[in-house]
Amino acid sequence: MIITVTLNAALDVTYRVPSLRPHTTHRVLDIAERPGGKGLNVARVLAGLGHRTAVTGFAGGTSGEELRRRLAAATRADLLTDALVPTAGATRRTVAVVDAATGDTTMFNEPGPTVSPAEWASFVDVYRGLLGSGEAGAVALCGSLPPGVPVGAYADLVREARAAGVFVLLDTSGEPLRRGLAARPDLIKPNADELAGLTGFSEPARAARDARRRGARAVAASLGAEGMLAVAEEGVWHAVPPGRLSGNPTGAGDSAVAGLLSGVVEELPWPQRLARAVALSAATVVAPAAGEYDRAVYEDLLAQVKVVADA
Amino acid sequence: MIITVTLNAALDVTYRVPSLRPHTTHRVLDIAERPGGKGLNVARVLAGLGHRTAVTGFAGGTSGEELRRRLAAATRADLLTDALVPTAGATRRTVAVVDAATGDTTMFNEPGPTVSPAEWASFVDVYRGLLGSGEAGAVALCGSLPPGVPVGAYADLVREARAAGVFVLLDTSGEPLRRGLAARPDLIKPNADELAGLTGFSEPARAARDARRRGARAVAASLGAEGMLAVAEEGVWHAVPPGRLSGNPTGAGDSAVAGLLSGVVEELPWPQRLARAVALSAATVVAPAAGEYDRAVYEDLLAQVKVVADA
Repeated sequence: MIITVTLNAALDVTYRVPSLRPHTTHRVLDIAERPGGKGLNVARVLAGLGHRTAVTGFAGGTSGEELRRRLAAATRADLLTDALVPTAGATRRTVAVVDAATGDTTMFNEPGPTVSPAEWASFVDVYRGLLGSGEAGAVALCGSLPPGVPVGAYADLVREARAAGVFVLLDTSGEPLRRGLAARPDLIKPNADELAGLTGFSEPARAARDARRRGARAVAASLGAEGMLAVAEEGVWHAVPPGRLSGNPTGAGDSAVAGLLSGVVEELPWPQRLARAVALSAATVVAPAAGEYDRAVYEDLLAQVKVVADA
Repeated sequence: MIITVTLNAALDVTYRVPSLRPHTTHRVLDIAERPGGKGLNVARVLAGLGHRTAVTGFAGGTSGEELRRRLAAATRADLLTDALVPTAGATRRTVAVVDAATGDTTMFNEPGPTVSPAEWASFVDVYRGLLGSGEAGAVALCGSLPPGVPVGAYADLVREARAAGVFVLLDTSGEPLRRGLAARPDLIKPNADELAGLTGFSEPARAARDARRRGARAVAASLGAEGMLAVAEEGVWHAVPPGRLSGNPTGAGDSAVAGLLSGVVEELPWPQRLARAVALSAATVVAPAAGEYDRAVYEDLLAQVKVVADA
């Protein structure tokens, strides 16, 4: 079982309108709603790969109910454990307004509820329970922190995982990433901007080495169309997708996390983990629905990703 | 007890954003959610006046649950009966994005669910039950028709009320109003535009007389800042608020409906019904929250509304 943690989950809503005109009234042509938040995306992809996952984090209010209902509906029941912790406040929505004429998107992100100290304590109990269940093979800590959660939260959660002997991947940015590194996560998966923001180095290989010096045991940096660079104790690899793919990059990073973690629990060597991450990421970019991946494209690409070991 | 019918209820959501910029991402500063739909607004004002009301119509999905929860929270429990009929589809949301810098509003209106024949039949059963309960003093049929409900629905509902001996007010527009008139509602409350659209006459007194000829037993036309004109069997009256009021006209017409209906069940003469409708309407315009009315302003204005009988 793989645990994914989404402390700042959202219900992602997409409105298609004929044409966006500020200060007028729009008829919404159609509505799509899906569970949002990086850890939930990771869990969905893991379930698609046949891995059992437990999702935790927070969900509350009728938007939280809708999120849980849609998560259950979108995932094979035998592969998903919903261990989300209830909050008094309602789960935030993000509303993407898509202009049907131009394809442009305008986003409105709700602030979301403040997590109370008691809610945080309940979450930590649930998280410990999952880590100590004897079934956890890995845990992914994903995304931003909601109001009310201490900025050093990820460092504590990394420590808990390491104390329980569970492989821990941290996928966040800014101060929560900086603080989380101090607790020595097994793997981080920043993109090039996040890595540069963390280390001050714009060259990914140099920045990844610096991130390891700051506490990450390994770094898998996603480089967009240029694939992924891994810097670990075992070596340095660079995985490149075959040719340039166009599409929607939403969720591509989360698919990469699912690829990496599935490779970890299957005890695959680094090159295969990276190939899986890069192929899943590319199959997510080309899928018509944001955040979904195309299974056939994934299997096709998997054989075509080139992984090169750096000296 | 007064029954209000809202076939096309909505959950009205307001997002305040720092400044609306198309094709960018906005942080929502704060969110307000309230039960929307004309009949629900009427019920809230009636409860504010101390009248027992039963609300019916449709509500479904988690947005419908949220609507019911907020309706109950906003109304004295002893004054409100929630007789909304569940739908398989989710209650529509309307999202108003308010630009905090300019005050301008951009609206996104969801289409809402299609009402199935079985859901419509369930509603008609509930409606008949309320009419036949022996407690119904009046019924208000309010707003637009959702997809799936026949365009002649209001004519049927007017006939049911008349057969049960219950005073029936119809507040809608366009084809549903035109069709509804054929069943001879006791009162309609169009605004000047709706009345002109119905009759082809722009002069309100002439248009109101024509609407009576088309089937309305009485007409109370809301004329915005110029108050309200009533044309009935008993006479013609014009009620004018004291001076021009500025504010948000959302819900002002619904407050007027509540004023008229409360006057009907209290058996007040026409001039007092009109004074109440105009004062409530004005107290709604000046209230800071859209669709709410200011009780002190209402009581103050009530004495100042001038009602003149026309020859």
